[in-house]
Amino acid sequence: MTPERFARLQQVLARRQPDLTVLMDGVHKPYNLSAVARSCDAVGVLELHAVPADDPRPLNRQVSAGTSKWIPMHIHASTEAATLALREDGFQLVAAHTDPRSVDFREIDFTRPTAVVVGSELYGLSDAALARVDHTVAVPMVGMVRSLNVSVATAVLLFEAQRQRREAGMYAACRLEPARYASLLFEWAHPRIARRCRDLGLSYPPLDEAGEIIEMPVGL
Amino acid sequence: MTPERFARLQQVLARRQPDLTVLMDGVHKPYNLSAVARSCDAVGVLELHAVPADDPRPLNRQVSAGTSKWIPMHIHASTEAATLALREDGFQLVAAHTDPRSVDFREIDFTRPTAVVVGSELYGLSDAALARVDHTVAVPMVGMVRSLNVSVATAVLLFEAQRQRREAGMYAACRLEPARYASLLFEWAHPRIARRCRDLGLSYPPLDEAGEIIEMPVGL
Repeated sequence: MTPERFARLQQVLARRQPDLTVLMDGVHKPYNLSAVARSCDAVGVLELHAVPADDPRPLNRQVSAGTSKWIPMHIHASTEAATLALREDGFQLVAAHTDPRSVDFREIDFTRPTAVVVGSELYGLSDAALARVDHTVAVPMVGMVRSLNVSVATAVLLFEAQRQRREAGMYAACRLEPARYASLLFEWAHPRIARRCRDLGLSYPPLDEAGEIIEMPVGL
Repeated sequence: MTPERFARLQQVLARRQPDLTVLMDGVHKPYNLSAVARSCDAVGVLELHAVPADDPRPLNRQVSAGTSKWIPMHIHASTEAATLALREDGFQLVAAHTDPRSVDFREIDFTRPTAVVVGSELYGLSDAALARVDHTVAVPMVGMVRSLNVSVATAVLLFEAQRQRREAGMYAACRLEPARYASLLFEWAHPRIARRCRDLGLSYPPLDEAGEIIEMPVGL
């Protein structure tokens, strides 16, 4: 690893937003999963959440293909389990969904801990998700078609979140706990060694200023 | 056609923005073409422009499949021809492209006649397009990946244009010339009869308040 590469990892990690995420509830087209993961990375989402569609193969391929290499994806067994876990972690659940109660997406305070919830390409948001979200938001539309592409709708919400968080200075200082930052930095810089350390129950070894391992742990 | 359907056609047409468009320069994945067309419809783009990729089949399929049924697509022979035509029509050309000269996309005045120019999924903006645009704009990104999905990037720009145009009251009154509005309304309400009229060199017959043809032209 070059010192420039290590500096870039540090810079990106220091802007990650642990309290901004997306829950993909049944999204199944690989190109949409990939587009959502790229948007998440661009606005600093730290981790993604997903409930597999009826056919979970695209999600598995997506995870294994590493399109979301920089965004770990948590797979939940059901919509109920996913929304419960996020709520327990203090996230407000904001769903992209047009109905009479929906508010303009720009009225949401995205500086609060927020999970953007999006439904499947074909069926939209599930009833189970709809019953559990805090807000449904609409993107104003003046055309004939009633819905946006799912990765487009997600991105429009995420970039509004990014705009609000930039204005609030939330990218100006690292938002991760020091221990979590150090551990993630090691995993980003040395993914294979990190995996072996975890398999063997070893702590990650310290890094020098250029990101190199100072001394390899005994047993590795 | 129900009176409700006709009222909806009128309402949508009255919000179309003849001075906002997208030039897709070499976009070739059908799902991206489709996603861009849906976003265009949602923000009121009247017509799209495209330069085919080296393999123009997806574009042809897209046009014939009618995904962009509500957005006519003008196909240009080359990037040079497309940019020249748009410039002659008074459009500023704004390209989504990150380089040192790029400005934040929110700094652009999208209430001016604007064509958003986007390049291909693989190669980005072509040199020919880059040499001819007025502004290159960047979407602020804080992640590891250097680019967004092309339909996502286009949508982020278009919804900023929509935001600015709403604030400026540009959706409040019909922006089409009365003759063009009437002609498009007929084509939307009666596409097959409109085509036969054009083939036979006949004017479109007048419509009643519910959108029905008052008297079919002689010869039809």
